[in-house]
Amino acid sequence: MKTVSESRCFGGVQGVYTHASQATGTEMTFGLFLPEQAEDGPVPVLWFLAGLTCTHENAMIKAGAQRWAAEYGMALVFPDTSPRGPGVPNDEAYDMGQGAGFYVNATEGPWAKHFRMWDYVTDDLPHLVFNTFPVDESRQAITGHSMGGHGALTVAMSFPGRFASVSAFAPMTNPSVCEEWGRRQFTAYLGRDESLWGQYDATVLMRKRGFDGPMLIDQGTADQFLEHLRPEALATAVAERRQGAILRLQKGYDHSYFFVSSFIEDHIAFHATALHG
Amino acid sequence: MKTVSESRCFGGVQGVYTHASQATGTEMTFGLFLPEQAEDGPVPVLWFLAGLTCTHENAMIKAGAQRWAAEYGMALVFPDTSPRGPGVPNDEAYDMGQGAGFYVNATEGPWAKHFRMWDYVTDDLPHLVFNTFPVDESRQAITGHSMGGHGALTVAMSFPGRFASVSAFAPMTNPSVCEEWGRRQFTAYLGRDESLWGQYDATVLMRKRGFDGPMLIDQGTADQFLEHLRPEALATAVAERRQGAILRLQKGYDHSYFFVSSFIEDHIAFHATALHG
Repeated sequence: MKTVSESRCFGGVQGVYTHASQATGTEMTFGLFLPEQAEDGPVPVLWFLAGLTCTHENAMIKAGAQRWAAEYGMALVFPDTSPRGPGVPNDEAYDMGQGAGFYVNATEGPWAKHFRMWDYVTDDLPHLVFNTFPVDESRQAITGHSMGGHGALTVAMSFPGRFASVSAFAPMTNPSVCEEWGRRQFTAYLGRDESLWGQYDATVLMRKRGFDGPMLIDQGTADQFLEHLRPEALATAVAERRQGAILRLQKGYDHSYFFVSSFIEDHIAFHATALHG
Repeated sequence: MKTVSESRCFGGVQGVYTHASQATGTEMTFGLFLPEQAEDGPVPVLWFLAGLTCTHENAMIKAGAQRWAAEYGMALVFPDTSPRGPGVPNDEAYDMGQGAGFYVNATEGPWAKHFRMWDYVTDDLPHLVFNTFPVDESRQAITGHSMGGHGALTVAMSFPGRFASVSAFAPMTNPSVCEEWGRRQFTAYLGRDESLWGQYDATVLMRKRGFDGPMLIDQGTADQFLEHLRPEALATAVAERRQGAILRLQKGYDHSYFFVSSFIEDHIAFHATALHG
């Protein structure tokens, strides 16, 4: 692991690091915020999975999360959204290839070799983080934005007991049935057998398993991508399952980080309650 | 004026706008945050002048200012740092030309025609803002980062009575005597007659005039540009003048927006006290 930068931030340290990932077979970059409390021992951690076109940097600089992570004594991890670099395939579309890993393990075509973001965020990077930093593996929570909200929800439901709580900002909720943000990418990454897609679909997973812990989802009503995100699909599944959850439709908010930053305080307080409780 | 985007943000609106500037003779872009309180009538305003290489966007997305501006009912204006576009001269160095207007009215060479950022931030843009938005011209404060801290301090001291308070993050304080960030640019923009430089030098202005209101300056002790910023020059001038001021050296913080965002809450609370008091 190499240190790209470390900056003092709200009494803690905002670092950026690179490492050779076994999952993706590439060098990966991530951001990690450690609050001041980490000087006295391991702190709980909130994973933040970012959306399409993002790197490790977007949420790290735009979400305003460090202010509240510092207050609640919580580490933050900001993974990248795909492998990158020489030899890594890409696509002209902003929503395929680099910057658009969709948090799946690709099995098809040119993608299968490097696009293993599921393993990266659930195994490879956690292994590095818990072995390197004063972060408490027994106190984890996860959140994300858009494609990263999809990642947070699917990861949380797939590892029962790992995360105390899950939240999401404007998540893609039902990619298996969304042509633009889902079917196109799943076909490319996973192939045409749709029975393999459900493991990466929050609505499908909600119907099958749900999440054993508190769940918070914020969705702006002026989001320009509402038809791709399909909040109604997950809302229906949550209600039908009687899943403990708070779903908030935030009037007038769009898909931007101005929306995320407006509610990050609530999300971090929500996770802090679950983690410290 | 044209609207580039408007996003709901902390109950208010974060807008980005362009307009034809008389001062620079170019199209200029700026960000403006209006808190929810502006729906009920004009609100006070805090100007945020950004640093080298920045556009209107950097502080708008990285400083975390909207959270606190919303709480205190304050508008925020984020001007660009230079003219841009076809026909506008530039320089290969990151600290000359586009992105490096230094908040002066250039009089020399290729710069004189467009590089009139002093007039832009003190006359042209205020005129537009106060005639277009529910912002109260009688309740203004100003802050800035690095080159923008230099801008905030020099503008505040040059318009007595206009600003209730001034603050700065890691400001350039004494550009007339700093070769790297000051003398090189002032020579290019203003010419070799150094007697014309003092009007744009916060330390010189502090010795001559000071500021009739509260002043807050934060400076990180791990700032990689300390030798260019020269906090000791302004500190000496402040102390010798008995200027009412709070100068804080923040241990371990560098020059980044991780530093700015760590203390923006304090700065906005500080300005709110001056503006609402």
